[in-house]
Order: sequence, then C-alpha cells, then structure tokens
Amino acid sequence: MASTEQTRVTVRQYFDTMAARDWDAFGEVLAEDVVYEMPQTAERITGREQLVQFNREYPGDWRISVTRLIADGETATGTMNFTVGDEDLVGLVYFELAGGLISRVTDFWPEPYEPPAGREHLTERGVSGLDRLSRPDGS
Amino acid sequence: MASTEQTRVTVRQYFDTMAARDWDAFGEVLAEDVVYEMPQTAERITGREQLVQFNREYPGDWRISVTRLIADGETATGTMNFTVGDEDLVGLVYFELAGGLISRVTDFWPEPYEPPAGREHLTERGVSGLDRLSRPDGS
Repeated sequence: MASTEQTRVTVRQYFDTMAARDWDAFGEVLAEDVVYEMPQTAERITGREQLVQFNREYPGDWRISVTRLIADGETATGTMNFTVGDEDLVGLVYFELAGGLISRVTDFWPEPYEPPAGREHLTERGVSGLDRLSRPDGS
Repeated sequence: MASTEQTRVTVRQYFDTMAARDWDAFGEVLAEDVVYEMPQTAERITGREQLVQFNREYPGDWRISVTRLIADGETATGTMNFTVGDEDLVGLVYFELAGGLISRVTDFWPEPYEPPAGREHLTERGVSGLDRLSRPDGS
C-alpha cells in the first residue's frame, strides 16, 4: 500500500509532467487500466494509452498552475488554475492510487454562475486570488 | 498544529452537524473569523455567526451524503452529494484549519455541461455512481 508521501510524489508528478507536456513521463504514473471520469459531462476514458492521448490532443495553448495538493493514504486531490488565452478556469482533480500508480481520476471544471437572490445580507462579492476563474462580465 | 487525524475528525464533524442541521455544533468547529468563499459566484462570507446563519437559512429540504474525505495536516477536502427534491448536485469543499478549527472553506458546485466535440474517439458516456449529478436531459 502506498504511503501518503508516495501518493503526494506521484500526484505531483502527474501535474508536473502534464505542465511540461512530457507525455511519456505522464503515462508512467498511470495504472494501465486507469479510469478517468468527468461527472459533469458523464464522460469516461479507460486505459493509460487513451488517457495520455486525450491529454496530448487537448486543444489550445493551455498552461496549468497547481494551487492545492492534499494527499491521504491512497487518495488525493489537486486543484489547478488552467489558463488558455485570456480565459482562467479552475480544475479540481480527485485521485485514487493502487500499487503506487494512479488508478482513478475524477475531474471537475466548475463554471461561474450568478449568485441566487436572498443572501446578500450575509455575503460580499470578492474572493481570494487563489482560484482564478474568469467571469462572463470580466470581473 | 493540528494533526491529520484531528483535521479528519473536525471536517467529519462539519459535515455530520450540517447533515443533522445541528447548527450550534456546526459553529463549534468554525474559527470565529472563518472565511467562506464560493469562487464560482465570487461570494465571500466572513465570521462564524454569519456562516452558521447562511447554512441555517439555506432554502430547500436538502440532504447531504459525504462521498470523499481527504485530510492532510491542516488542509482537507470533502465531497458530497447534495439532494434537494429530484435534483442531485455535487458539492466540493476545501478546508484550511488553524488551531484545530476550520479557518477557511472554499466551496465549488460544478454543473453539468455538454462535452465538446472532437474527443468521441477516446471517451464513452457513463461514469461511476459516486458523484450523482442531475443532467438537464434526465440521464
């Protein structure tokens, strides 16, 4: 069973090799039968080769910056700011490991939306700069 | 400094007391100057009383079920299925602790969207049942 520290190193390598577009090294941290899921679109990719290809083919001149990395036994999460052109997105990634390799990845891409009415007495607008998310109005 | 195990207990209590609508006990795990942020709406709530009130006033006959809890030193994340009426939402929550209390909460509510074209050769539709997210078409 992988330790928390091994998990942290492996997940860090997932992001570092992605950022460097070093797809061979990216593949090395994935289990051969890795499952990658995107619950928002109900899409699933199965297999190391397929997941490497998905990332290699992902369009746009994107850059990523890791903002959180939380590791706990054989589970972990990482969050990133994903920038493509003028647009900032946030990616939230949950990991499961098995035998020291990443066996499951669940990716979320939360999008901006307008706050519902009725809570203005408790909220102010403005958040810390950690999670950079472009808003449609450019704010 | 809080240990990972203390963090896990505290974050578990955050969710358990929320699920039970036990707002006094919910407040006990929050730092007095807790900051709660929702990057998608750029809303922020500051202060224990305000955050308790926000949750107490949150409309609807909602129920939550915790699906992941990952703790690491003074950071953690929890994910939940949030059900209100017929609708399933997923809440992704990131925590920072200080002095054993929750000092920062960052909440994300990812929504379903249609997959972009051009990756059908790698993806299939359908994900595991862990994260339950209602889709507009009811799938």
